[in-house]
Amino acid sequence: MHSVKFYPADKSVNIRKGTSLLEAVRMAGIELSTNCGGEGICGKCRMIIVEGDIPNRVVWPFNEEQIEKGYVLACLSHVYGDLIVEIPKGRRARDKSVPAPEHLVETDKSLSYKLHYKTLPVVTKIYIEFEPPTIFSGQADHQLVSDGVKSRLNIPTMQMGLKIIKILPRVLRNNDYKVTITVGLRRDIAEIMNIEGGDTEASNYMVIVDMGTTTVVAHLVNAHPRTTIDSAACYNSQAIHGSEVTGRMIHSERKSVKVLQKLLVDDINELIRILCEKNDVPIDSINAVVCAGNTAMEHFLLDLSTSNIRRKPFIPVTVEPPPLRAGEVGLQINKRGLLYSLPGISGWVGSDLTAGILAIQMHKKKELGLLIDIGTNGEVILGSSEWLISTSASAGPALEGASVECGMRAEPGAVDKVYSESGVIKYTTIGGEPPVGICGSGIIDMVSVLLDENIINRSGLFIDDKRTREIEGSSKRCMVLIEDPEQKENSVYLTEKDIENIITAKAAIFAAINILMRRLSLKFSDIDTIYIAGAFGNYLNIESAINIGLLPPVPPDTIKFVGNTSLKGAKLAAFYQEAFYELTEIRTGTTYYDLLGADDYVEEFRKAMFLPHTDIDYWRSIS
Amino acid sequence: MHSVKFYPADKSVNIRKGTSLLEAVRMAGIELSTNCGGEGICGKCRMIIVEGDIPNRVVWPFNEEQIEKGYVLACLSHVYGDLIVEIPKGRRARDKSVPAPEHLVETDKSLSYKLHYKTLPVVTKIYIEFEPPTIFSGQADHQLVSDGVKSRLNIPTMQMGLKIIKILPRVLRNNDYKVTITVGLRRDIAEIMNIEGGDTEASNYMVIVDMGTTTVVAHLVNAHPRTTIDSAACYNSQAIHGSEVTGRMIHSERKSVKVLQKLLVDDINELIRILCEKNDVPIDSINAVVCAGNTAMEHFLLDLSTSNIRRKPFIPVTVEPPPLRAGEVGLQINKRGLLYSLPGISGWVGSDLTAGILAIQMHKKKELGLLIDIGTNGEVILGSSEWLISTSASAGPALEGASVECGMRAEPGAVDKVYSESGVIKYTTIGGEPPVGICGSGIIDMVSVLLDENIINRSGLFIDDKRTREIEGSSKRCMVLIEDPEQKENSVYLTEKDIENIITAKAAIFAAINILMRRLSLKFSDIDTIYIAGAFGNYLNIESAINIGLLPPVPPDTIKFVGNTSLKGAKLAAFYQEAFYELTEIRTGTTYYDLLGADDYVEEFRKAMFLPHTDIDYWRSIS
Repeated sequence: MHSVKFYPADKSVNIRKGTSLLEAVRMAGIELSTNCGGEGICGKCRMIIVEGDIPNRVVWPFNEEQIEKGYVLACLSHVYGDLIVEIPKGRRARDKSVPAPEHLVETDKSLSYKLHYKTLPVVTKIYIEFEPPTIFSGQADHQLVSDGVKSRLNIPTMQMGLKIIKILPRVLRNNDYKVTITVGLRRDIAEIMNIEGGDTEASNYMVIVDMGTTTVVAHLVNAHPRTTIDSAACYNSQAIHGSEVTGRMIHSERKSVKVLQKLLVDDINELIRILCEKNDVPIDSINAVVCAGNTAMEHFLLDLSTSNIRRKPFIPVTVEPPPLRAGEVGLQINKRGLLYSLPGISGWVGSDLTAGILAIQMHKKKELGLLIDIGTNGEVILGSSEWLISTSASAGPALEGASVECGMRAEPGAVDKVYSESGVIKYTTIGGEPPVGICGSGIIDMVSVLLDENIINRSGLFIDDKRTREIEGSSKRCMVLIEDPEQKENSVYLTEKDIENIITAKAAIFAAINILMRRLSLKFSDIDTIYIAGAFGNYLNIESAINIGLLPPVPPDTIKFVGNTSLKGAKLAAFYQEAFYELTEIRTGTTYYDLLGADDYVEEFRKAMFLPHTDIDYWRSIS
Repeated sequence: MHSVKFYPADKSVNIRKGTSLLEAVRMAGIELSTNCGGEGICGKCRMIIVEGDIPNRVVWPFNEEQIEKGYVLACLSHVYGDLIVEIPKGRRARDKSVPAPEHLVETDKSLSYKLHYKTLPVVTKIYIEFEPPTIFSGQADHQLVSDGVKSRLNIPTMQMGLKIIKILPRVLRNNDYKVTITVGLRRDIAEIMNIEGGDTEASNYMVIVDMGTTTVVAHLVNAHPRTTIDSAACYNSQAIHGSEVTGRMIHSERKSVKVLQKLLVDDINELIRILCEKNDVPIDSINAVVCAGNTAMEHFLLDLSTSNIRRKPFIPVTVEPPPLRAGEVGLQINKRGLLYSLPGISGWVGSDLTAGILAIQMHKKKELGLLIDIGTNGEVILGSSEWLISTSASAGPALEGASVECGMRAEPGAVDKVYSESGVIKYTTIGGEPPVGICGSGIIDMVSVLLDENIINRSGLFIDDKRTREIEGSSKRCMVLIEDPEQKENSVYLTEKDIENIITAKAAIFAAINILMRRLSLKFSDIDTIYIAGAFGNYLNIESAINIGLLPPVPPDTIKFVGNTSLKGAKLAAFYQEAFYELTEIRTGTTYYDLLGADDYVEEFRKAMFLPHTDIDYWRSIS
């Protein structure tokens, strides 16, 4: 065993001889996102060996000076002695479990569902005072409780497991037959999950999780009354095996899905632990975890094979997993607590989108709506209460601030707006903090400004050499937005490669939207509202997004930012059984259109690889 | 550790110092029934120490000669050295897992239900050839299978556990989408329990179990087509902790219900093993165990507390346990196989009686029927399709051949008929084998003959000293039926104590019947049919039963023997879902009348403690 100490994170880990440094990082609980999944290709996992030695050191992709300083790629370095390692701080290497900034807490007031739904939450608590039995009217304990709950909740079918049945005699008699019963919905059946003495109706906790490819967000809620208590988020630790789901699928086939499952489950458990600790909620009193996410993420969560999702004809194992005992996948909540993995539409349009449709109530509106969920995968939903069609395009993580050298999540210190005033490029940061990186909205702004200022051409290439240069920490030419001579790792810039990643992402999404529109012979002017979902939504500058061709040239007032609708919809389903059932209706009622079945997708994608589009006249005409 | 060897059973066991000899007997797998449950009271566990020594030996209840021979009570003897022990063979000590005699196999022809029910068995197999998915019509594996089964079986709600969902991709693709799906009923929900390649519909095995207090009977059946393959029976090993359920309940409260559970589960597992081995059926292909029995027995099976069943107001934990994974209680069948513990009526009228009502179809007949189930507990059901009422009386095991010195189960070699020809008492044995004991029907005959021949009076006491005497092996005066000078342990006789046990048993049952009749102001002539259930039913001489007052003085042709209706009804429920659901209707539709709520029960019981009754005129008048 060798000791590896990381600073400035100040974390240590003892590992076996020969372990890769990247694995050591993960074991130390430090988040590190790679694009290639640890294959020595992307060069994102650079670190500096401060003390100790790496035998057979690979010097790629570093220059003389960097090699001298001790730079290595963690994925290509194996530990054969004690080490002290510096992780260049700032953008890509952070502690896991960063508490979510204030704006992630969706106030429940913003959810319009209060007007529509009246049913109970998926997990309900009811307090009942039973009549003690006599020799003339004595029901068995199990039937007494079961019948009592059935009649109170108006539920025809009720299940109770042996473990609960066993404790009934004691709990009933020790509490004068005054008890609170926790009832969970499992498909169409209600299950008595717990029984405890006295009236504990007021504490019915659940955790709602949006399992993003890049970010995992969790909200701690109480269903009585329905309130959000707190939120937390962290990077998805699976990123060590690739920034996109395909890389992770390949890794799961080579090793085991369990590897991916554990990383995700550990992330969720850690978020739950943090939320409970911070809010004095015992972990044991969490009765359910309600998860939305893309279909691959749900498969990883449940340890299901994804190998048929990434191969024609792209068949997932399930698009509607049954509610499970949360402990069955390793989630640490109440030991009889349930895990609801919400239903999705296909292998490439998951429950984050059915939840999104639910949150927006697209399935009930007469207007024609277009929902664009901008994440590492870009999903598009088009339709109304009469029909819904969906598709999905692989965008990459650039618009979430990953796969961009200075990219970061929308957190305090992230450059979120970039604009030009009389030729001078200016910016703002989230919370007005000193800049430490640039998030999705800032990146889109900056590309738009660079285009307007003629610093890049419509292909995204630098055209004015005088305004770009090299900078310490990057091996390529950059357009520098901010340079901090004191804290060089906090400089903010874009490289041509970064811009290419952005263009690829926006082209994939735009082409997907455009194909759907064409298939249905629609113009953008037919659409009443375009809904933009995604964590960065609230900060996005619409004009910039249109300017670079991520969004079509429509009047800005038809565009609405709806934030993290995956989480909102999941919360809705958790709070109202009726909404929960609607997800299944949305699943079965939404057609999936696979772009790989579209002959013209590649052509559309190629045309969108310019800013804003190859054919400007065509592009202007589509709305 | 000390070695204890038992002969003639020829079984050895290594045990810890200080273990009781009774425990050693159990560990060696030897069946031994005690009345007191190992409290040193009943004196049933007598053995002979042939080699070795028992320190602090208790000499009670033996005489000089017996002490000299090495007699001890196993429950009061503790092992502190190697021993060789002789168990007096013959009546009470036998190997477990005695194969059931031919007559226990109920031919399926005798079940009239074939005419009435048309639904599927509780566990069904269906073979489906699915269309492989394409990019244009690709359902997820889980939804493909689930929807296919739903439409084939016309079931609205279908559950599938994660473990089955996980194997779907492989099983479907490795078998060209041609698979057999095992579907089990769990309450109102169907569950996909298994999926396997090819067409295996023809092997859908289940085991049906009647868990009697004294005897456990198991039938191996195939549901496709519905056939009984074989049967096996053994004594209930719980007898070591008391011959009646009350003793076992007390033991379970002192120690743990798990002790009783393990004994019963081990018995059932052993019967399943024997049945599978004998009939070349892999244990893994048993998909369900369907159990009927009294409520205490079901509680023991499920490790549920019985302490409230034996205390006012006699409340069981459950009268309708949910279907469980059989492995959850330790039953060894297919690892996803189900355990159905059928619904009962109250703490003292169990699923053996609901199954009995189902087997006879009392709940559908217009005639007024009386069902008397003669076992260690005597249960009585009265009613028709319009109403049903039930009660229960503790009879003791005498009528099953236990708690009688020469008593035994109805097996080859048991005296099953006793009659007098011109003053000479004669007998027959089951199978014409040399006599080794006397079973219930023989005991009732013999008491009847002793009464007619004026050897006993109406209180059951010997009146003719010349015809009774002492015999080797018993400490009391006996009426000897058979004495075998060569094999003294095979002698057959009754003591006054034996006769008292018989009278107590018949008095308890008769008083219970009579109380129900009186409550409903009925005469026996109002009853269309009296059904006698119980293992010994087929051999019972009706005239003897009436003569001693076990049955009322009705015309013998109104009495029908219906055999083990607990097992028949359970099989019916296993074979037909409709019958399964009817058990719940029977449960909720049958009133339970507790005799402890009847002021006149003790009086009725006391009056019935004569042969046939204290008040002969009254007794003759009741029909």
